[in-house]
Amino acid sequence: MKSMSEYDFELNKICKIINEKKYRKIMVQIPEGLKIYHEKIVSTIENGTDAVVILSGEPCYGACDINEGDADFLVHFGHSMITEPGIPYFFAECRSNIDVLKVVEKSEGYLEKNVGVLTTVQHINKIGEIKDILEKKGKNVFVGKGGKRIRYPGQVLGCDFSSALSIMDKVDCYLYVGTGNFHPLGVSIATKKKVIAADPYSNEISGLEGLKEKILRQRYAAIEKAKQGERFGIVVGGKTGQKRLGTAEKLKEMLEKNGKNAHLISLNEIKPEYLLYLNYDCFVCTACPRIAIDDYSMYEKPVLTPVEIEILLGKRRFEDYVFDQIE
Amino acid sequence: MKSMSEYDFELNKICKIINEKKYRKIMVQIPEGLKIYHEKIVSTIENGTDAVVILSGEPCYGACDINEGDADFLVHFGHSMITEPGIPYFFAECRSNIDVLKVVEKSEGYLEKNVGVLTTVQHINKIGEIKDILEKKGKNVFVGKGGKRIRYPGQVLGCDFSSALSIMDKVDCYLYVGTGNFHPLGVSIATKKKVIAADPYSNEISGLEGLKEKILRQRYAAIEKAKQGERFGIVVGGKTGQKRLGTAEKLKEMLEKNGKNAHLISLNEIKPEYLLYLNYDCFVCTACPRIAIDDYSMYEKPVLTPVEIEILLGKRRFEDYVFDQIE
Repeated sequence: MKSMSEYDFELNKICKIINEKKYRKIMVQIPEGLKIYHEKIVSTIENGTDAVVILSGEPCYGACDINEGDADFLVHFGHSMITEPGIPYFFAECRSNIDVLKVVEKSEGYLEKNVGVLTTVQHINKIGEIKDILEKKGKNVFVGKGGKRIRYPGQVLGCDFSSALSIMDKVDCYLYVGTGNFHPLGVSIATKKKVIAADPYSNEISGLEGLKEKILRQRYAAIEKAKQGERFGIVVGGKTGQKRLGTAEKLKEMLEKNGKNAHLISLNEIKPEYLLYLNYDCFVCTACPRIAIDDYSMYEKPVLTPVEIEILLGKRRFEDYVFDQIE
Repeated sequence: MKSMSEYDFELNKICKIINEKKYRKIMVQIPEGLKIYHEKIVSTIENGTDAVVILSGEPCYGACDINEGDADFLVHFGHSMITEPGIPYFFAECRSNIDVLKVVEKSEGYLEKNVGVLTTVQHINKIGEIKDILEKKGKNVFVGKGGKRIRYPGQVLGCDFSSALSIMDKVDCYLYVGTGNFHPLGVSIATKKKVIAADPYSNEISGLEGLKEKILRQRYAAIEKAKQGERFGIVVGGKTGQKRLGTAEKLKEMLEKNGKNAHLISLNEIKPEYLLYLNYDCFVCTACPRIAIDDYSMYEKPVLTPVEIEILLGKRRFEDYVFDQIE
């Protein structure tokens, strides 16, 4: 298990702000990967202040998911801000102090000459170090600036690959430093370039080609299955940064013009059991783009992304497949 | 399966209001028992108006659970209003047209002389008829007025037995007309009187004694198990009519005064998988009172009601056990 000391939770700073501003009700959001530390986090804030802490119990996968409740201060751990909350807030981005040197050096042999560097907010302070290591090895290194949902150059989200796309013309390949496959996979599909993932925890280097082919086959199958469908349920997310009602309404219109029935469904948490009793042949998810992909095998009916509906209706070729992104 | 024509969904009236007021985005909430009709409901409103309908996809168990989303009009089916929504609304209470005569006549032999009559909003228009039938059989019939969350005399909710309590001194027993055990069970435990349940769908009459004993044993066991606990997670509901932050804070203080640790946890939907990774020995649910009781076997750790914490801390005797109610 990772240790709590590996991350900077900034608890002293948080207590100081709460005491100075005399906040009384603190909502605390912790992403799933760090939730094991919830007791220590809540206790430290309660012991260091006069405030009552309310831990947000629902799973939290990103800064798109803001739960203010009835608190007067929000502390959101593990993500950088995307949209400003409606109450005073602090985003504790939880930088990791794990060493990236070793795995980046190890990645060298897999990389081309011109490399785009990408990582998550946990390692974003290591971007300079990563760049230096690679440049010393003779690489040309590029760090792209992302769109408005991206806080730091080189940062990538599971639903936003803009920092990779912005340097697409300059690089032959990308190096993603971090854990998990989804981010580099999205970059691979979005850019059609080689992507190498370097995991500083396991010290493993991996290519994405095999997984990419597997996921694309699954997506193709889901689209084909959905083509038989007559009735489409379009899911609209309820979370602050996942609401795309406009997209949902456009999809509804597009489907109806093509002779399909389409209804809108609002959901905060999207779960198989909520869709099970809704009588549609296929669902389209306009909330978190990862649900359709990551949870593929959990759903009985096909769940498509908005991009995939374009393919289904013949408005986009499968060869031009990209992951859904929130803009 | 029950047929849609058995209930009055008031769809013509709803379309008329939407057209007159020119509402554009309609949020529709349908309780689980009526959700099978969702397609027909959504289509009828969309075909009868120029509005877009958004179906609320999360389960809905009461009028405590109001989802306004970004709609300009809310249509909530199957429940009577408890608290006024923040946007214009229509509560379609979905009266059932099923005959109650037969089952009420059948119940006569099980009843004492002085009978309190109770039912849900689906059959509330039959209260007069039920009263007449029983009076013709020589009973003294009482219909109690409920508290401020209760819209009709004789109406009972799964979390509000006030209409039963208000006539407690006058009656020897209660007749509950409707489906399900929870309402009559709550009345039985709250009033300590005999309660007879008459189900107009199955035409069955049942007493509650056996179930009451079983549930009380379960609750006793849950409280005993929780007594070993040191760390308590107090769940605060996020839904409009289920928020009891004040109660939660009082419980926290009470537990801490008694040497326990207690943290507050906010949740909209309360699900076993959300509590599974929270490191508490016991949970207290201040949201929907039914969760602790109905979902007893789904939770690994004991989930108690606020009343049960009083028993755990020796502030109330188990003999004075009552179901938790929202006031």
